[in-house]
Amino acid sequence: MSPQKQTVTLNQYTLEQLVDIITREVMAVYPSQQSCTTCGDNCRGQCVETNPMAARQLLAAGASRFSARLGVSHIANDLASTIDHTLLKPQTTAAQIRQLCAEAREYGFASVCINPTWVPLAAQLLQGAKPVVCTVLGFPLGATLSEVKAYEAQQSIAYGASEVDMVINIGALKSKMVDAVRDDIAAVVQAAQGHTVKVIIETSLLNDEEKVEACVLAKAAGADFVKTSTGFGGGGATVADVALMRRVVGAGMGVKASGGIHNVEEAQAMIQAGATRIGASAGIKIVQGARNIAAN
Amino acid sequence: MSPQKQTVTLNQYTLEQLVDIITREVMAVYPSQQSCTTCGDNCRGQCVETNPMAARQLLAAGASRFSARLGVSHIANDLASTIDHTLLKPQTTAAQIRQLCAEAREYGFASVCINPTWVPLAAQLLQGAKPVVCTVLGFPLGATLSEVKAYEAQQSIAYGASEVDMVINIGALKSKMVDAVRDDIAAVVQAAQGHTVKVIIETSLLNDEEKVEACVLAKAAGADFVKTSTGFGGGGATVADVALMRRVVGAGMGVKASGGIHNVEEAQAMIQAGATRIGASAGIKIVQGARNIAAN
Repeated sequence: MSPQKQTVTLNQYTLEQLVDIITREVMAVYPSQQSCTTCGDNCRGQCVETNPMAARQLLAAGASRFSARLGVSHIANDLASTIDHTLLKPQTTAAQIRQLCAEAREYGFASVCINPTWVPLAAQLLQGAKPVVCTVLGFPLGATLSEVKAYEAQQSIAYGASEVDMVINIGALKSKMVDAVRDDIAAVVQAAQGHTVKVIIETSLLNDEEKVEACVLAKAAGADFVKTSTGFGGGGATVADVALMRRVVGAGMGVKASGGIHNVEEAQAMIQAGATRIGASAGIKIVQGARNIAAN
Repeated sequence: MSPQKQTVTLNQYTLEQLVDIITREVMAVYPSQQSCTTCGDNCRGQCVETNPMAARQLLAAGASRFSARLGVSHIANDLASTIDHTLLKPQTTAAQIRQLCAEAREYGFASVCINPTWVPLAAQLLQGAKPVVCTVLGFPLGATLSEVKAYEAQQSIAYGASEVDMVINIGALKSKMVDAVRDDIAAVVQAAQGHTVKVIIETSLLNDEEKVEACVLAKAAGADFVKTSTGFGGGGATVADVALMRRVVGAGMGVKASGGIHNVEEAQAMIQAGATRIGASAGIKIVQGARNIAAN
C-alpha cells in the first residue's frame, strides 16, 4: 500500500472510509496477541531484551526508533541505536536522569528524551557520547504563548538539546485559527536553527479533519516530524491515525507513533501504516522487571 | 484550632500524627454527604446556583474564592465576587474563552483562569470590567527551565494577566536541590513585578516532608500563595494537606485548596484546616446542566 500516492480530500466521510479500510487491511496481516512466557504481562513474548529477534523483525519492517524506560539491561547491540530513552514524569529526579544517561551511554541508545529542566545535566553527562538529548516544548498542553515555546526551544538547544518535540496549539486549531497554528510551529522551527523539530498533534483530542489540518500546517511551517501523542492526553497512537498522517505529509516528512503501543503486532501495524519512528515504552518491554529475568 | 501557633518539626512521624489528628477533628464536625434532589449528581444539594445559602455558609466560614465552569447562570450577586472562572483544558476554543469572559463580566466574577495562549484575547474582552485575568506557568508539569517560567510570567502580564499560578519544580524538590526550587519561584516573583504569584506544589506527588519543604521555599522566595494541585496530576486537595500547608506558611500567606473538592462539606473542611481560597469547580455545582434547571 502506498498511501502517499492517493489524493487527500478534506471530506470527513471519505477519510473515515479510508481509515477503516487501512485498519482492516493492516490488522488482517497480523496474528492475534500472545502472552509472554518469560518476562510477565504487557510483553507478550516480544521483549527487546529477552527476545531481540522480534524487535529485529520490526526493524526489518521499517522502524527506525523505539523508546525505552529507565532500568534497561541486556539490549542487543543492533537494537540499541533505535531506542529513544524516555523519562518525562514531573517527579523525575536528578538521580534518575543520571541513571538514564548512564544507560543511554552504556548501550549506545539514540537519545534521551527528557523535560527541559534536565537538559543542562543530561548534556553534561552525555558530552562526547553517542546519544543526543531530546526535549519537549509547551508540554503537554501546547497552550502557552508562541514566543514562550520559541524561547524554550532556543534555551534548551543552548543548553545542549539536539531535538525538540513541541505540542501544537490545539485550541487554536479547533478555533480554525490556522495562521496562529502555523506561525506557532514556524516560531519554534526558526528558533531551533536547523535542529530536528517534531510536532505533537495530540490525536486523541482531534477529529480526522483536524488531524489532516494539523499535519498540513506542520509541513507548511517546516517541521521535520509529525508525532501522534504526548502520552499525557488520555490517548495514544492508532493505526488509523498514523495512516492518515503519513498520507497527508507524504514521503518527505517523518511520522512518529507514540503512546499506547503495547506489543510488536501493534508497532508493526504502525509501521505498515506509515510510521518512521515508534515510541513504545509501554509495549516494547524494557522495564525494571526484565532486569531480574536477565540476571537469572 | 490554630495550627499556626504550633511548632513545625521536619519529622515524618510527627507530621503524620498531626495530619491524622487534624483530619479526624475536622471530619468529626461535618455530617455525611447528601444527594442533590434538584440539579443532579456531584452537587449533593449544595449548588451555588440552585442553593446559594449553602455557599453563603462557606463564605461565612472564611472562603474568599470559588471556581466555576463554563455555562453558569443565575449566580447570586453576593457570591459572584468569590468565583474564579476556570478553563484550562488544552482543547479550549476562542469561542469558549469568549463565553467564559462574557459570563465573568455579566456576573462580576473575581477572575477568569486560563492558559497563556488565551491571555491576550481575555484581557481585550475584559478591558474595563471587574474580573481580572489569571494564567498558569510551566503548567502542569513544572519541569521547564526557570528562565522560561519567568519569561512566560513577564509576557503573560504584558498581555494583561494580573495573577500567575506557577508549578514548582517537583523533580528538583525530590532531588533535594532546594536552592534550585527557591530560585525557580523567585525568578517568577521577580518577573511578576508585584502581581499575585501562587505556587502550585502538586501535593499528590509529594510526601509530607516534601510538602513542608515546598511551602517553606515558596515563602522564602516571596510568593503570595501556596496552592495544592494543578488538577492534571492525578490527585487533588485533602484536608490533611491544607492543614499542613497552613501550619507551615503561617497566617501571612494565602493557601488555596484546588482539585477534587466535590461538595460543601469538603470545602468547609478545607477552610477549617486553613485554606483561604477554594478551587472547587467539580463540586460547587455550576455547570451547563444547572442552566436547564434554572430555566424551568
